[in-house]
Amino acid sequence: MTANPVYNFSPGPAQLPGAVMARVQEEFLDWHGHGVSIVEMSHRSRAFTGIAEQSVRDLSALLDIPDNYKILFLQGGATHMMSMAPLNLCNGSGTADYLVTGNWSKKAAGEAARLTGMNVAATSAATNFTAIPDPAEWRLSEQPSYLYFCDNETIAGVEFQSAPELPDGYEDTVLVSDMTSNFLSRPVPVARYGLIFAGAQKNIAPAGLTIVLVREDLLGRARPDVPFLYDLKLLAEHGSMFNTPPVFNWYMAGLTFAWVREQGGVEQMHRNALLRSGKLYEFIDNNDFYSNPVAATCRSRMNVSFILADSSLDGRFLAEAAHNGLIELKGHRSVGGMRASMYNGMPETGAHTLVDFMADFAARYG
Amino acid sequence: MTANPVYNFSPGPAQLPGAVMARVQEEFLDWHGHGVSIVEMSHRSRAFTGIAEQSVRDLSALLDIPDNYKILFLQGGATHMMSMAPLNLCNGSGTADYLVTGNWSKKAAGEAARLTGMNVAATSAATNFTAIPDPAEWRLSEQPSYLYFCDNETIAGVEFQSAPELPDGYEDTVLVSDMTSNFLSRPVPVARYGLIFAGAQKNIAPAGLTIVLVREDLLGRARPDVPFLYDLKLLAEHGSMFNTPPVFNWYMAGLTFAWVREQGGVEQMHRNALLRSGKLYEFIDNNDFYSNPVAATCRSRMNVSFILADSSLDGRFLAEAAHNGLIELKGHRSVGGMRASMYNGMPETGAHTLVDFMADFAARYG
Repeated sequence: MTANPVYNFSPGPAQLPGAVMARVQEEFLDWHGHGVSIVEMSHRSRAFTGIAEQSVRDLSALLDIPDNYKILFLQGGATHMMSMAPLNLCNGSGTADYLVTGNWSKKAAGEAARLTGMNVAATSAATNFTAIPDPAEWRLSEQPSYLYFCDNETIAGVEFQSAPELPDGYEDTVLVSDMTSNFLSRPVPVARYGLIFAGAQKNIAPAGLTIVLVREDLLGRARPDVPFLYDLKLLAEHGSMFNTPPVFNWYMAGLTFAWVREQGGVEQMHRNALLRSGKLYEFIDNNDFYSNPVAATCRSRMNVSFILADSSLDGRFLAEAAHNGLIELKGHRSVGGMRASMYNGMPETGAHTLVDFMADFAARYG
Repeated sequence: MTANPVYNFSPGPAQLPGAVMARVQEEFLDWHGHGVSIVEMSHRSRAFTGIAEQSVRDLSALLDIPDNYKILFLQGGATHMMSMAPLNLCNGSGTADYLVTGNWSKKAAGEAARLTGMNVAATSAATNFTAIPDPAEWRLSEQPSYLYFCDNETIAGVEFQSAPELPDGYEDTVLVSDMTSNFLSRPVPVARYGLIFAGAQKNIAPAGLTIVLVREDLLGRARPDVPFLYDLKLLAEHGSMFNTPPVFNWYMAGLTFAWVREQGGVEQMHRNALLRSGKLYEFIDNNDFYSNPVAATCRSRMNVSFILADSSLDGRFLAEAAHNGLIELKGHRSVGGMRASMYNGMPETGAHTLVDFMADFAARYG
């Protein structure tokens, strides 16, 4: 280990809870006295199915998931779901509505357009994705198969503050949400959604696993020629074990769920996120050296982007930050500047240390 | 750790090389002094792209892969490839030929039949998949898009001893092979194949990764409405990073490739496999208490199935074996009996210890 703590602000794969990481290392070669690693066990073994069942119970408790939802642990990343949503919910026809508020929802909308009818109900492209369009201006289809949105866009750092409210006449429209980057960071009114999914690599486990919550009555509508591993009904019927699941990622997800419960649940994760991001936004807003372009009404609690008044200092900022154990702060190439990604695994001291460094840097170079 | 070594004969997820496992544990919390785990690093970081590039070089050297092949590291399991093969190589039409020699090729043929024209060129279903049909009896299509087979079927333990020879007139027919369960266990004449794939969880890394070798000129033939993550051309163009790859599995695959090279390459893995399985087959063939139903010409070096003369002793055999650190020997439910799966990670002492136990058990109960 390095002498001082390293705070890893990577947007993903990202810093995971320290206690979970330590536990994984400790039992990596010998899981609970079985003499073999969890990654060497059959997914059909009693040991692993026990882990899987407990993980479902814990996640269900954390998000208070209604009984009529299936909880799936799928191989691969959330990008698979960008295809699976239209393939499973549109039955080869119909129109799906998309709110395009950043790179991820834009990518999803593009994929949907290849696979079914797609309507961009609203987009904030004109403001470089630094806002969420006013619901009064959304142009919904007459009878969309669903309304899709990305709950938190990581590049600019834009987050829905709550589930979108739909106008009169759309009471039955299903919400579909990509919650990859803010899953388990606050309570979610699951019953308002038809489909929620989240890639694991921000708040849950290493990359290669996607958590899916889907309302049961939506299963069985897949296009007939969908590849079998893209049929959510088949996957649900086999308890996410139609084929070998990503056992290590699932196991770590289970440890993370248990850790979140110990910490006080998603309510506590929400408080932590508000403290971390609030500390940073408050500092940025009160310092002329830094600025954040995102509308105050939709700033992300997970990804805080900021730019320096003098971009010629960017390289120096990153180098000095890294020297102080604050790494992976470079902003996405499409927007430049800096970005501090702070998921559930980031301790509050990470935000404090970053703000202290930023204040010191501004005092010396501002 | 338990006092005595545990030999894990699980068919998969399976025992991985001990040296690789120890290395992973050692550097799990702090990869090469970076202060963070490999699972917490961006896949675009210099550290991870270095790992990825080295893994490609090592695999290429191990299998002497020609320059006109792309080497991909994909999310998920080999089952995805059962859909991707027809979707990528048949362009929505055409007929693919399948050799059905066990559960895995049967599953693949069934999926292909949903997605394109499919012809079962030969099947050993009548002998309960204990043989490989004589090539003289294969009924190939006139111009198949490809000929598909599973190089090693894990349930009965049936393995092609070499790449299938096709009759005159089929010189241009592309071979497609599922090598999930014997990948890196012997040299492969890659140039004779159009597409080779292998799920990681037997010989390479934890479940959730599939290695793909594909001849470049076969890319770009995918059905137009294929989900984007099922388009091999797109995946190849992005160096397997169109979206976040399964970083932990890829990293472990790289460690395994380096380990295989240190051990003496796939030639040495082949010698090891012949020693392990040969020891077991020789013992079984010379002992009336045990028997193996597979034709001698196609016995698997990876999965040795055997039955006891008195099946009422099965439970006792499994319990005593486990008590002696020999675990996961139960045969697949569809065939019963026992199965010893011995992939690259199984040391030769595992086979010796198992044979010693089997001899002792037969002496006491035979």
